[in-house]
Amino acid sequence: MIENKEKSTIVLFSGELDKAIAAFIIANGAAAYDHEVTMFFTFWGLNALRKDESVLVKKGWLETMFGKMMPRGANKLGLSKMNFGGLGPKMIKYVMKKHNALTLPQLIELAQEQGVKLVACTMTMDLLGLQKEELLDGIEYAGVAAYLGDAADAKVNLFI
Amino acid sequence: MIENKEKSTIVLFSGELDKAIAAFIIANGAAAYDHEVTMFFTFWGLNALRKDESVLVKKGWLETMFGKMMPRGANKLGLSKMNFGGLGPKMIKYVMKKHNALTLPQLIELAQEQGVKLVACTMTMDLLGLQKEELLDGIEYAGVAAYLGDAADAKVNLFI
Amino acid sequence: MIENKEKSTIVLFSGELDKAIAAFIIANGAAAYDHEVTMFFTFWGLNALRKDESVLVKKGWLETMFGKMMPRGANKLGLSKMNFGGLGPKMIKYVMKKHNALTLPQLIELAQEQGVKLVACTMTMDLLGLQKEELLDGIEYAGVAAYLGDAADAKVNLFI
Repeated sequence: MIENKEKSTIVLFSGELDKAIAAFIIANGAAAYDHEVTMFFTFWGLNALRKDESVLVKKGWLETMFGKMMPRGANKLGLSKMNFGGLGPKMIKYVMKKHNALTLPQLIELAQEQGVKLVACTMTMDLLGLQKEELLDGIEYAGVAAYLGDAADAKVNLFI
Repeated sequence: MIENKEKSTIVLFSGELDKAIAAFIIANGAAAYDHEVTMFFTFWGLNALRKDESVLVKKGWLETMFGKMMPRGANKLGLSKMNFGGLGPKMIKYVMKKHNALTLPQLIELAQEQGVKLVACTMTMDLLGLQKEELLDGIEYAGVAAYLGDAADAKVNLFI
Repeated sequence: MIENKEKSTIVLFSGELDKAIAAFIIANGAAAYDHEVTMFFTFWGLNALRKDESVLVKKGWLETMFGKMMPRGANKLGLSKMNFGGLGPKMIKYVMKKHNALTLPQLIELAQEQGVKLVACTMTMDLLGLQKEELLDGIEYAGVAAYLGDAADAKVNLFI
């Protein structure tokens, strides 16, 4: 029964590659242990869920500017340390490939396959002017109330 | 009975506007659900609790320097990303106003009205030379032991 | 009986002095309350566990470069704010000494004395090319599965 499953939640607030990778490795690990996992993407964390390609949607100039300034999707994120103007992420991706580690897009795909619930924070979407068409398919949309409902039932709650 | 209330704790370690906003949105949401919420402000997070105006207190030169270098209060915090020398916070405040979102000072006031316990870390106050007169009224003062006591009883514990 | 002990876990992902100090203060506090505490060091957090001195081990050029670029041990970490090219950490260390606060190396030693389990993330070690000889003695080695096992049993789980 679903009620007996362990539950875990992760808030991904940060928009950096290394933190997103850590979040998805933990989420996928927990899902592999049959935890019910919810990831809640808020603020800069939402950028990990953006589609690679530019999506034509109508928005104001400020929202357009936000959209252009923020990294578009998992492949474009920088590092929280040693970013070196984009060289750092290349190095990390290189060593991950060398060790046959999953890339961030692959980790996201695996999470979706394993039934990890990916939830985009609707308040942040409003503020930054991000629209559903610009985010990955198969994700959910909710606010802080839904997150708190999940977190109150969970044993492991992380803010990353 | 108070013993049956769900409990939540948030450590606010970071001194950035975006993280402080996220912390208070979660805290206010939990309080709205009738959770007993404790926020513990440590290291740079303490700056969110500083009064806007300069308060005349006696302190050594190093403490005075710390006091001058660190942002004085919720209105002065920078962003963790896209700060752009202070332009970023202005943009975020602009879009939040446009969407009628509460400002950080309003979120703090709401938290106090809802009975969220705001606790300043006394060890950090000692280290950085911050004195009670410089912090908001109506907050509490405690150390890591008090935080751990609350956290051990809580279901949702976040470090932000 | 060990089964009845409260459990706490801390993931130290960040490689900064201030965050490492906060993590160890919480861990030592919890251990003093007789919690069973596990600290899991991943990504940049691993640098806090590196030995001070250079250790001669065979590694590829990229791993050697990573090793040289990342801070070698608890004494070399920078600050997450107000680093000022290394002046910030000196100031923090100065005020901590003035207040007789434990240094980070002393906090790590105390954690080991109190039986806090320090676990190095083996996946990160592989990626960054860090070898056991380069890390402090008396620590353990494990992956995300072991962390999740501990976290699922714990009441306080923090990601720092």
